[in-house]
Amino acid sequence: MPAERTPAALPVAAARRRRLRADRARQLADLLRHQILTGAFPRGVLPLEDVLAADHHASRNTVRQALDLLRGEGLVERQPGVGTVVVGEKYPHGLDRLQGLAEILREHGRVTNEVRNLGPVRAPGPVAHRLGLPDDADVLCVERLRRLNGLPLSLDLSYLPMDVGGELLGCDLENTDVFRLLERLTGGPLGHADITLEAVNADAHAAAVLQAPRGAALLMLERLTHLPCGRPVDLEFIRFRGDRITMSGVLRRSP
Amino acid sequence: MPAERTPAALPVAAARRRRLRADRARQLADLLRHQILTGAFPRGVLPLEDVLAADHHASRNTVRQALDLLRGEGLVERQPGVGTVVVGEKYPHGLDRLQGLAEILREHGRVTNEVRNLGPVRAPGPVAHRLGLPDDADVLCVERLRRLNGLPLSLDLSYLPMDVGGELLGCDLENTDVFRLLERLTGGPLGHADITLEAVNADAHAAAVLQAPRGAALLMLERLTHLPCGRPVDLEFIRFRGDRITMSGVLRRSP
Repeated sequence: MPAERTPAALPVAAARRRRLRADRARQLADLLRHQILTGAFPRGVLPLEDVLAADHHASRNTVRQALDLLRGEGLVERQPGVGTVVVGEKYPHGLDRLQGLAEILREHGRVTNEVRNLGPVRAPGPVAHRLGLPDDADVLCVERLRRLNGLPLSLDLSYLPMDVGGELLGCDLENTDVFRLLERLTGGPLGHADITLEAVNADAHAAAVLQAPRGAALLMLERLTHLPCGRPVDLEFIRFRGDRITMSGVLRRSP
Repeated sequence: MPAERTPAALPVAAARRRRLRADRARQLADLLRHQILTGAFPRGVLPLEDVLAADHHASRNTVRQALDLLRGEGLVERQPGVGTVVVGEKYPHGLDRLQGLAEILREHGRVTNEVRNLGPVRAPGPVAHRLGLPDDADVLCVERLRRLNGLPLSLDLSYLPMDVGGELLGCDLENTDVFRLLERLTGGPLGHADITLEAVNADAHAAAVLQAPRGAALLMLERLTHLPCGRPVDLEFIRFRGDRITMSGVLRRSP
């Protein structure tokens, strides 16, 4: 290819090599991320760069760039004399069943909730509408900062109809999932929930509450939970720290 | 409350008011976001600030701050003489069934794929392991930038065993979902997929490819798709632009 030999083509070729290396580094980082999250590295120490390069048929430069990406995500750190170690832990949140946070994370530790706001408010129009309430109804508004083993995990805002939510006012919201309290109050299991997941950047205030950097990627879950009879009873907006949670499930091709 | 009257308490009270207003603005933004995403505003124009304030029992300051948050997310813009208009469109991606992107977004427009990398590579160890292949196997590696109506939506990297993937080399990958091609080749529907969702900040390179700001929140989907017999045939790492996609589904309380 003669064009490669002209002086003008040299920067183009160099840019192409940089692009290819960036692609390969991202691809390698994706594989390592999965291994980190599934606990594939004994004692949380990653293999040496040479070993990673051989395992992945990659250059050492690519390995270094991939580790830089994972460091940027707060998943690993370089420790002198030890190597690259896993520092961030992400917790799995099932997409297969409707569960409360303490239930889901039972094996991982203790969930505690700091109640930041609690009390009746006049329902904003869309809240009344989605909960099937008259426009001028009051709803219970509960905002909680949820922690796992003391580390901030999510900021949850819930709206509940007063006949159901009012009963929560005397309950131990600091140590109990709202789902569990609702089931105690209604005497049976909840029904289903409509959920929507999005990735959003944290605004300055949400970042401060979650002790995350401003702009940090958050996994945002909107959830409308219904009683078995179909009545909607809990409208939630949950901001999970993206570096601390993953959502997993199984999808089938046939309905 | 005498403490409120001491000079030292004044900044504390002011900080508390600011915090409460930030909380309320975020809460209002969450409600408006849902309405924007579900197309609740006729012609994509939001009501006037006064109307929003009355509907949501909020102050105009809170309304303004909420609109600022949505503007920061690229969902709305202020247009002189018109008001606040919806500019970002987010597309719904189902969490209830295993589907390809063109299938999912059929009603929203045309999906085209720019093939950035395509060819056999020696499988990195974890890829071979997850696809149930010997350690020294080759796999087909396909990287595509996927666009909806010309706008970048996701960057998808797939690894497929060569006996299946090799057949894709002659196919129209620019205009067809890999799922559809796989079903044509295998003569029947796919089986199930294990999925994991995360929110991550875009690294500089992925951001450039997706034409998103550096650090933009991405919804990252890892998906391992199986044939009905249980054989894994497609390992994917998909980075969706967080501002262009939502994932929706239904969860049930009983298994």
